[in-house]
Amino acid sequence: MRFDEATAVVASGSDTYSGEIQPGWDIVGITNGGYLMTMSARAMGQESPGRDLVSISAHFLSPARPGPVTIGVETLKVGRGISTLRAELRSDDKPLVTAIASFADPNRQMSDEEMFDSAPPDLPPPDGCVRAESSQEAFFPPPFVDRVEMLLHPDDAALFSGDPAGVARIRGWLRLLDGEQSDAYGAVMASDALPPAIFNANLPVNWTPTLDMTVHVRDPKPREWLRLEVRTKYVTGGLLEEDGEIWDEEGNLVAHSRQLALVPR
Amino acid sequence: MRFDEATAVVASGSDTYSGEIQPGWDIVGITNGGYLMTMSARAMGQESPGRDLVSISAHFLSPARPGPVTIGVETLKVGRGISTLRAELRSDDKPLVTAIASFADPNRQMSDEEMFDSAPPDLPPPDGCVRAESSQEAFFPPPFVDRVEMLLHPDDAALFSGDPAGVARIRGWLRLLDGEQSDAYGAVMASDALPPAIFNANLPVNWTPTLDMTVHVRDPKPREWLRLEVRTKYVTGGLLEEDGEIWDEEGNLVAHSRQLALVPR
Repeated sequence: MRFDEATAVVASGSDTYSGEIQPGWDIVGITNGGYLMTMSARAMGQESPGRDLVSISAHFLSPARPGPVTIGVETLKVGRGISTLRAELRSDDKPLVTAIASFADPNRQMSDEEMFDSAPPDLPPPDGCVRAESSQEAFFPPPFVDRVEMLLHPDDAALFSGDPAGVARIRGWLRLLDGEQSDAYGAVMASDALPPAIFNANLPVNWTPTLDMTVHVRDPKPREWLRLEVRTKYVTGGLLEEDGEIWDEEGNLVAHSRQLALVPR
Repeated sequence: MRFDEATAVVASGSDTYSGEIQPGWDIVGITNGGYLMTMSARAMGQESPGRDLVSISAHFLSPARPGPVTIGVETLKVGRGISTLRAELRSDDKPLVTAIASFADPNRQMSDEEMFDSAPPDLPPPDGCVRAESSQEAFFPPPFVDRVEMLLHPDDAALFSGDPAGVARIRGWLRLLDGEQSDAYGAVMASDALPPAIFNANLPVNWTPTLDMTVHVRDPKPREWLRLEVRTKYVTGGLLEEDGEIWDEEGNLVAHSRQLALVPR
């Protein structure tokens, strides 16, 4: 099943969409947060025709599992250049995800200033990286990695065999299967696709529940390969932040993300 | 007027709070976003007794000006360790800010792992920095800087006299006036208190409208001085992100923030 089908939502009433969380997009049975944000974003996007997803902030309320969900959408403002909406994704009337998103008119007047004070993640080309495949015996790598093509930096791939690099950073390439391109929605999912960066440090490897996550899409153009990096700088007070960046093969910035998660115990 | 009074909200009905945006917390007449997030967070905090603000994500819908506002609050989930709420701050029935926040039980079970992969901003002690004061003649520095004590790194203070350092980064100390301490709410305001980091680069200096902002509070303990840094790495597609960090005098991480803004024209 294509990614856009796996995350599809259809109007099922006034301001309400329905969809089906597909199996296989999970980690220890719990559906990936980026996948749920993608479904929420698609519902809000259908209420914002002709506008591009720029920003989505989600807080996660309860773990999600495969099955039917509904998404209530409320349009808060339609501005000249920017629209803001909110969504609530529910299963059996239990809220799972609440989100706010902004969409932009691609033809709005905007500054053409450019500044880049950093560079894409240091990563060999895809054929120099190591493909992640799910484990039949262990919970990690999870089935999720088979839903996409994920190629890890050779220095980071060793964490899959229990040999973390010692730095809370993971780099890799990701593309959708069967030639499907990643647009803004693909970037949202990809922002949460790599294993938690702390799995590459000398910290416990276990379910790392995300409290909230924001993805900013800097360029929504569809692309084949995405060049990803996730990094955690601070683990303290039972919490960790994880910052992600997504670039394309040509060195264009596609998106960046930040999430706050509970430190696994 | 103390900061906690200037951002106070009082219950005015079922799930509704009222407050008054005070004059002087503005930039070119438009109220600071961190100030509005603080009022929103206080309303949600009153519905979360005994829990500490951990995370607030806000999207900004319309510019705010001094005057009365109401804040509608909805509790989405009260979990064992974490509660999630949402709020909408309105003036004259026009929505200005929509926000989601998470509050944590300070006595929850949590990991005691610690990791610090970066350091506090490089900054001389307060008496080696330069106090920011509002301009009587120009729109910048704005009146806002007089509502707090803001001391800038000498290398960054030159931007106030039209001599930017050439790097999109600003560092400074901030404390509340008259001995008031900064708690989690002070940290939310402080996250948006420094001038936009791009004012220190060679880019146009003008009103920089924030689309959305998230503040993560890593330690809510009240403190006198906050050590701040804001930085922008990427200006592209008419958008810029700004990352902030707040530390205390003893080198503890207090909070970090990210906002997405429109590039001034």
